[in-house]
Amino acid sequence: PDGGAAERARERSLALAKPPGSLGEIEDLGARLAAISGRVPPPVPEDPAVIVCAGDHGVLGRGVSPWPREVTAAMVRNFCGDGAAVNAIAKSVGARVSVLDVGVATELARHPRLRTARVRPGTDDLSLGPAMGREEAARALMSGAGMAEELVGSGVDLLVTGDMGIGNTTPAAALVSAFTGRPPEETTGRGTGIDDETLRLKRSVVEEALALHDPDPKDPLGVLAALGGLEHAAIAGVILAGAANGTPVVLDGVISNSAALVARALVPDSTGYLVAGHLSAEPGASVALEHLGLRPLLDLGLRLGEGTGGLLAVPLVRAAARVLGEMALLEDLELG
Amino acid sequence: PDGGAAERARERSLALAKPPGSLGEIEDLGARLAAISGRVPPPVPEDPAVIVCAGDHGVLGRGVSPWPREVTAAMVRNFCGDGAAVNAIAKSVGARVSVLDVGVATELARHPRLRTARVRPGTDDLSLGPAMGREEAARALMSGAGMAEELVGSGVDLLVTGDMGIGNTTPAAALVSAFTGRPPEETTGRGTGIDDETLRLKRSVVEEALALHDPDPKDPLGVLAALGGLEHAAIAGVILAGAANGTPVVLDGVISNSAALVARALVPDSTGYLVAGHLSAEPGASVALEHLGLRPLLDLGLRLGEGTGGLLAVPLVRAAARVLGEMALLEDLELG
Repeated sequence: PDGGAAERARERSLALAKPPGSLGEIEDLGARLAAISGRVPPPVPEDPAVIVCAGDHGVLGRGVSPWPREVTAAMVRNFCGDGAAVNAIAKSVGARVSVLDVGVATELARHPRLRTARVRPGTDDLSLGPAMGREEAARALMSGAGMAEELVGSGVDLLVTGDMGIGNTTPAAALVSAFTGRPPEETTGRGTGIDDETLRLKRSVVEEALALHDPDPKDPLGVLAALGGLEHAAIAGVILAGAANGTPVVLDGVISNSAALVARALVPDSTGYLVAGHLSAEPGASVALEHLGLRPLLDLGLRLGEGTGGLLAVPLVRAAARVLGEMALLEDLELG
Repeated sequence: PDGGAAERARERSLALAKPPGSLGEIEDLGARLAAISGRVPPPVPEDPAVIVCAGDHGVLGRGVSPWPREVTAAMVRNFCGDGAAVNAIAKSVGARVSVLDVGVATELARHPRLRTARVRPGTDDLSLGPAMGREEAARALMSGAGMAEELVGSGVDLLVTGDMGIGNTTPAAALVSAFTGRPPEETTGRGTGIDDETLRLKRSVVEEALALHDPDPKDPLGVLAALGGLEHAAIAGVILAGAANGTPVVLDGVISNSAALVARALVPDSTGYLVAGHLSAEPGASVALEHLGLRPLLDLGLRLGEGTGGLLAVPLVRAAARVLGEMALLEDLELG
């Protein structure tokens, strides 16, 4: 990111026809968009797209979620059929929806909205061995990056990360613990909704996985392969491609937050291209965002994923850019 | 509001293709919109409008703000000229901007976006006597209501309250203290930005005014006349007209929050038609919203007014309605 552009945006913000600082975090966001684009005012995003990355999880066999594995594929069909929350919210903010199958266990029918890049039919159980091979993690990451590159090439000027994968908050918690050093009880939560007993089991599964793999955060691809999910890898790729293209990437919840830690471990500068769309109700989200130094725009108790929380923040991004581009200056006010 | 519709919305929300409750406050908002409209799903707002109510304040003579009185008129001209934050943000969320002069001290030139209904050229100093007469408060309130009625008649389906008036956080603090019983040190803040000394002065001005008028919350129009501003009165009118028409009203910051207390004292049911757009940085805002039982959607450290924080919440309102109207049901997912 371009620190000079951020500085110029802050100066412009102070000169606008309003009391200095009175637009709070919208002003910070404007400076961030300037840094990302290298332009003051930054361009107003006109063509946002959410990429919903989908995969299945071997760890589901441990009973970490009440939902059956088949729901992942069913929800991917629902995304294609325009019946999910991500579809409704994408329409309400004017965003495209793209779906990337990087590892759904069930084979899915072709659909214009669905990119099939199944690296493998779901991961293995991370508490018994590596979730996937290192090369597979790299392939999933490249698939996400490739899809982002293609969307940017077709005119998309704002990327939103999204995820679908029954069981995927377990690998997210493991990744957050691995990269932040925080213990599983601080990073593992109820996901889309589990009871106390299942939560205890889920925490011990994450503990077992960390003990088994002893992850080294200096080897991010190794950590991703040992503990991650295919959609986590793909989202890390979306982030790296966004950063490489100077396109802002709005993060959704804890899956995206954990992927941002992977991306940062690979390319430290990538975090500067991110906007934290919202704070997920999952505890690992705040741990990850704090570690990344990102302050979430929304805090609405969301714990759905799919990109819903990221999409809800898109209008704030647009507003922040418009404020810098369209407001008069204080010195131009006619005091009559 | 229609409690039965809210209940049906909650049931529908539980049946949608997502884990129950996973959309957090967006689900609560959907139920609220159902209650307001009496329909499940509630209509998706297509034609929102912000009404920026403007007035001047005699208390400015006490030195409660560093900004000169002339800025109120200059900003009204800026709203008409499309150069203010409210204009940029309204464009970014697709809302109309209407401006209501209920009491700007300076006479303003006609403009298609400006409704002139100057009850008087600003209020008197509330620390020395009543800010305005009871009949004047009623007229300002009716002007706001009339403008809201006219907009709703022309197709507006979501109202956003906004304000402009140099010095207007002082009467807002006095109103919040009068209706909630909380002391001035909890309701009086730095407004758009004042130093410690001015803050101490501002608090003592609010204390003096409360001591002078000994406001009786059971006489809301009397309290409004003694302590309020003309734009506070007009916003209370916008709220009452919205409620009377079953049109949701999104509140901006502390000026709007204080006006909502007036509206509630007059018509207790009116609060049920409100959505708290954001939490202003001004301390009276959280005191007022707590008293109203409203949870703000956004918390971005805004302290500008004009309707900016209310407008930024409009996309969340649209999303909440769309989610209820467009999502598939869980039972319709094909798990095969």
